[in-house]
Amino acid sequence: MDSINKLIEYFSEFPGIGPRQAKRFAFFLLTKNKSYLESLTKNITELKQSIRICEECFRFYTKDKNDLPICNICKSVNRDNSIMMIVSRDVDMETIEKSHSFNGKYFVLGGTVPILDKNPEMRVRSRELIKRIGILDGSLKEIILALNANSEGENTTDYLKSILSSITEKHSIKISILGRGLSTGTELEYSDSDTIKNALKNRA
Amino acid sequence: MDSINKLIEYFSEFPGIGPRQAKRFAFFLLTKNKSYLESLTKNITELKQSIRICEECFRFYTKDKNDLPICNICKSVNRDNSIMMIVSRDVDMETIEKSHSFNGKYFVLGGTVPILDKNPEMRVRSRELIKRIGILDGSLKEIILALNANSEGENTTDYLKSILSSITEKHSIKISILGRGLSTGTELEYSDSDTIKNALKNRA
Amino acid sequence: MDSINKLIEYFSEFPGIGPRQAKRFAFFLLTKNKSYLESLTKNITELKQSIRICEECFRFYTKDKNDLPICNICKSVNRDNSIMMIVSRDVDMETIEKSHSFNGKYFVLGGTVPILDKNPEMRVRSRELIKRIGILDGSLKEIILALNANSEGENTTDYLKSILSSITEKHSIKISILGRGLSTGTELEYSDSDTIKNALKNRA
Amino acid sequence: MDSINKLIEYFSEFPGIGPRQAKRFAFFLLTKNKSYLESLTKNITELKQSIRICEECFRFYTKDKNDLPICNICKSVNRDNSIMMIVSRDVDMETIEKSHSFNGKYFVLGGTVPILDKNPEMRVRSRELIKRIGILDGSLKEIILALNANSEGENTTDYLKSILSSITEKHSIKISILGRGLSTGTELEYSDSDTIKNALKNRA
Repeated sequence: MDSINKLIEYFSEFPGIGPRQAKRFAFFLLTKNKSYLESLTKNITELKQSIRICEECFRFYTKDKNDLPICNICKSVNRDNSIMMIVSRDVDMETIEKSHSFNGKYFVLGGTVPILDKNPEMRVRSRELIKRIGILDGSLKEIILALNANSEGENTTDYLKSILSSITEKHSIKISILGRGLSTGTELEYSDSDTIKNALKNRA
Repeated sequence: MDSINKLIEYFSEFPGIGPRQAKRFAFFLLTKNKSYLESLTKNITELKQSIRICEECFRFYTKDKNDLPICNICKSVNRDNSIMMIVSRDVDMETIEKSHSFNGKYFVLGGTVPILDKNPEMRVRSRELIKRIGILDGSLKEIILALNANSEGENTTDYLKSILSSITEKHSIKISILGRGLSTGTELEYSDSDTIKNALKNRA
Repeated sequence: MDSINKLIEYFSEFPGIGPRQAKRFAFFLLTKNKSYLESLTKNITELKQSIRICEECFRFYTKDKNDLPICNICKSVNRDNSIMMIVSRDVDMETIEKSHSFNGKYFVLGGTVPILDKNPEMRVRSRELIKRIGILDGSLKEIILALNANSEGENTTDYLKSILSSITEKHSIKISILGRGLSTGTELEYSDSDTIKNALKNRA
Repeated sequence: MDSINKLIEYFSEFPGIGPRQAKRFAFFLLTKNKSYLESLTKNITELKQSIRICEECFRFYTKDKNDLPICNICKSVNRDNSIMMIVSRDVDMETIEKSHSFNGKYFVLGGTVPILDKNPEMRVRSRELIKRIGILDGSLKEIILALNANSEGENTTDYLKSILSSITEKHSIKISILGRGLSTGTELEYSDSDTIKNALKNRA
């Protein structure tokens, strides 16, 4: 089964999908009619044509008729230019937006830096970030490093602090990280010492 | 995000995929280059062109240069024509083949019959099955109903027995079901009474 | 906290209990009043006084006023003396009884034999079993080895077959094992080859 | 099986234990010898004799030869008297102690207040708490409400705030709660809006 096996290989690369589920996807598509498959492939093909990467924050966004090179958040006059949140991926940014608790601008790194990684600049958009901060010169007052609270997130935070130190000092930009403490649902009994320590420090 | 949301909707229909993972698929594809996406859509498009349904057992198989309308199992002279295993889906058949314990022919129902379903003939290939048994007249000695050991599988088994009774009686075809008992890994302590009863009945 | 820590250690030995849950047990008991604790310890103390091991099948049973040395199953005249089921533990026997599908007698091994174990006779009641079979001479026609369908269960089955071979041959006792096949809930797609093979062999 | 079933009932009341595991406990004890069981029951019996409740913080502690009515934390001169952390249960306090991040005193409520509960004063040591704060008058500067970050914890926090308001105002005692934010291991993508909001507010 040549053609189907190639498709199973493709689906196996999808995030979180193993060979067994990839095979179920292939058999699922086999049961669909031609117009369904055409519509699916059309959407995949148009994905890159209709989606572009914002030149300022590097997130994906849907092109509109004006065909602007920046996304609706970056071009909004209602968002605070003095504060920029740096996130790893588009999904993180979407979670932040859904919380309606941030009104500044974003920068999407495109990845994280694993511990002991030799070439972190290959993992995240370091140069683009520094260039962007340089352009914002004057207006930018604070950068929030919004990485996951795990070891890879902390390593990425450390890396960003090191590459940003000279430019943020030069322009007097404050660097902050997301507050640590009890996240919703946390039970004290099962909390680690770091979380307890942070929850105590950030008590209010 | 129009085009991406349409794609997310498509992926949400994939078996076992919820909206969150569907979104991850879409973002995953956004990070891929054009040639990857072209190759993926090409494989999806060709899926139906290169795969056909066997006219005898109704399983999917890859067309070869001879362009025969029946699959390699159905056309094989080394497989036993006197015994036919009826399975629900292609994946079931593949699991059986992988066990190297069956050398007869197959028939793929294309589905199962849920309990209290009003139109079971819309769920499974009833007419095609009866027609196929009619054609095999004379050579066929046994039909194995190989459905899942759950309530939907048992309901399907009951349905098949009822629609097959007259033709199997007429041609003296034996109908059997897969043996019940302890499956690999079963611990007695956690077994239900039916499994115990069957394991006792089938002791050997 | 000396006394409480000793108790936590005891509870940590309970089957399936780790140190954290053991500690919760101890704190739970601390919240109970004196009469609760007295009642609990009384039950633990009386456990061995009121429970004895059946001299025939070696299962635990509650002493009654007649103070018989054999359990109600072994002394029952309604149970079939010609068939004996050998199980690993009391809980297995209880699962079998609950299925109402067996009316013979039992023998409880008291354990299983791990693979490559050097002294299997220290793990299970080998001598007691052979002695018991010897006493039953004449009446016993079949022994069912009812071990778990996993590697340790199969190893125990193999061990029992080897130590029983001479006595069962001598007295013409049949040895059987529980039937293998699809246990309730099994889906073909996720079944291993052994289960498929057995389900096919035991088809009915 | 009377005596064993009573014991199974007792074990079924243990936190997190269902009837099946309770039965395994009972069978486990049946396999133990008399001296093991005696030692276990002795420890249960002595639990309440050797453990007492601290008259100041209400936590359980092991009596020592001086037979003081307060625990080693409450009597310590090295702990800060000006700050008191209110926790639900002893296990919470132990987790805090293990983090080595708090050097004040404690008060153990003995429970939490479920939402819409009619008699919260029956659930937690309200009167004892207010009495204790009254005694500390002058030295106490801050009370930390350290409840779980779930709805029952928040309800308990609200209840405590309401009953403590007059006494804390009178003595100018600050009331604080543990900081909310990202707990260790939190991934942004899967965080709820409240956690995001708190993490932003507490950024540092």
